Amino acid sequence: MSEELSGGLALDAMGGDLGVAESVEGLKLALTSVPDEKLKDPILVVGRETELLPALESVGLKDDPRIRVVHAEDVIGMDEKPMQAIKKKGKSSMLIALNLVKEGQAKAILSCGNTGALMGAGTIKIRPLDGVERPALATIIPGKEKFTVLIDSGANPDPNPIHFVHNAVLGANFAKIVLGVENPRIGLLTIGTEEGKGGEKIQQAHELLKSVGTAIGYEGLVEGYHLFDGDVEVIVCDGFVGNAVLKSCESLFKVISYYLKKELKKSPVRQVGALLAKGAFKGMKDHFNPDEYGSAPFLGLKAPVLKAHGGSDRYAIAGGIKIALNVIEHDLTAHILEDITKVNELLAKQG
Amino acid sequence: MSEELSGGLALDAMGGDLGVAESVEGLKLALTSVPDEKLKDPILVVGRETELLPALESVGLKDDPRIRVVHAEDVIGMDEKPMQAIKKKGKSSMLIALNLVKEGQAKAILSCGNTGALMGAGTIKIRPLDGVERPALATIIPGKEKFTVLIDSGANPDPNPIHFVHNAVLGANFAKIVLGVENPRIGLLTIGTEEGKGGEKIQQAHELLKSVGTAIGYEGLVEGYHLFDGDVEVIVCDGFVGNAVLKSCESLFKVISYYLKKELKKSPVRQVGALLAKGAFKGMKDHFNPDEYGSAPFLGLKAPVLKAHGGSDRYAIAGGIKIALNVIEHDLTAHILEDITKVNELLAKQG
Repeated sequence: MSEELSGGLALDAMGGDLGVAESVEGLKLALTSVPDEKLKDPILVVGRETELLPALESVGLKDDPRIRVVHAEDVIGMDEKPMQAIKKKGKSSMLIALNLVKEGQAKAILSCGNTGALMGAGTIKIRPLDGVERPALATIIPGKEKFTVLIDSGANPDPNPIHFVHNAVLGANFAKIVLGVENPRIGLLTIGTEEGKGGEKIQQAHELLKSVGTAIGYEGLVEGYHLFDGDVEVIVCDGFVGNAVLKSCESLFKVISYYLKKELKKSPVRQVGALLAKGAFKGMKDHFNPDEYGSAPFLGLKAPVLKAHGGSDRYAIAGGIKIALNVIEHDLTAHILEDITKVNELLAKQG
Repeated sequence: MSEELSGGLALDAMGGDLGVAESVEGLKLALTSVPDEKLKDPILVVGRETELLPALESVGLKDDPRIRVVHAEDVIGMDEKPMQAIKKKGKSSMLIALNLVKEGQAKAILSCGNTGALMGAGTIKIRPLDGVERPALATIIPGKEKFTVLIDSGANPDPNPIHFVHNAVLGANFAKIVLGVENPRIGLLTIGTEEGKGGEKIQQAHELLKSVGTAIGYEGLVEGYHLFDGDVEVIVCDGFVGNAVLKSCESLFKVISYYLKKELKKSPVRQVGALLAKGAFKGMKDHFNPDEYGSAPFLGLKAPVLKAHGGSDRYAIAGGIKIALNVIEHDLTAHILEDITKVNELLAKQG
């Protein structure tokens, strides 16, 4: 690794389900639409040179001044056990990309590789921000008209009440930059808004959030019924609930699509109808699978660590790159640190 | 109340969002399709006589020998706080119907009223079965081709590991009768099937379930991704997760329908397409909103307590009544008691 290497985003080009070529196509798409002023520093593209260089060449990016190639001879597979992979695969694209961030040679990382490995190695190498005990995974979900940030979508299955407050701060800062909302409204996910419902931990988190509410924009409890209504811009929950909810909703969406297709094939008349209404189905699919929001940040570390879906195609990867560049440009980490410090001081005063 | 009153199902005809008339229409529908041998005992219809009698008269059920009217002068509203309502509204249709079960004058109750009040008063009046610490709410969810029982969908947000085992037994016995599956397969919902994922409590529950696995049909961990795939007939989870997942999926379904309608209206061609494909949309809606499964049982009490959705229409209420009659006919409670006793003995032997 060259001493004077200095970049903006470190892109782990390996480890996605669709391979290096798709990552490089995504990079090409992103570079086509991102204005130069957002690219003050080159993107460090990390991967096995024997695969990466031909892929870059084939899309005309091999000698592009906006990128630098960093060789990594190994890859972490999707099915590898995270902790074992972290120990054994120091020469993998993911770990080398994380090292670039750790050493200050890059400002953020985007990977579509193994989530557990990225969260584990991210925490070990980049370290949590001062004042944040447990980082959290945020996911952007589509709503009726707008988008919402759900946090935590799977990092910390068993948070304590104060972690919910931190999640609120992390999610709100991400929403500000990515959804472009000045004062995001925050809701705490529960299972009934009556007094005492949802269990002790949620009640404690609710009280803490209320106590710092004006500082962070806390609106109160929200129920699953309103998850996709867009009444708030940030929904806070524990990592178990967030993950179960998101995956179940993905499962439902798949089954609905499957079932609708089956129903639409049942008669020639329906088939004609389906053909005429094709654009509507595509519009719906695009809305609920928004590639422009193709990455989930692992928030609360000393630099942004962003995760794209393992199955990301070029459009999702391009979307993920744009989010990463946005987050670098607006210095998400500095804003989070400021707000976390403020909230921790408020909580300390209350005792 | 007459001393010699003796019935099968106690139907709380009040408290639903659509009122007494809709409940009575549901009753009429159910009576039309249920064979007489399933109706050994009359259905005790509980409600305010001034509203109930005219409603029954208008559908020709007033003097039907298959029903008896039990007067209740009060109703518990949907928005009332459960514990207050239970204390103050002893003369409500829900509490009178529960008393009929408690006194042995009815064998089960179906209500579409206030869920919290029904679970609270059900637990107080009917009492948990011997060996069951915490009753659980089960919900039937549609899948790709078949249906699945999710338990717990909201009764116990903070179960201990043994409660998960009990939920498995409760859910499996309900699935046997209602889905007609002889040996239901059981899965435990988690957020990643790797070793150690999902938190300590889920791991402990997983170990306990494995230890009694052959006795109850435990298949192992399942992820949200597979919730609607129908790989298992019973999905076990805690009441917080189950409730959040179900409500979020309802929210997603609503938003998808809303969005699809909007897309289909965007051009005249799409509108024609939508018209031709109308049957497919109806087919899908019916599949994902199955009225035949219009009730969720609160399982683990000494008699079946069934909850229909607050917004149930006549078809959902008729479906709920049929499930209730089925559960009475097959003596769900006796089967649960037998299996719970067996499983508790197995667990006790293991120490």
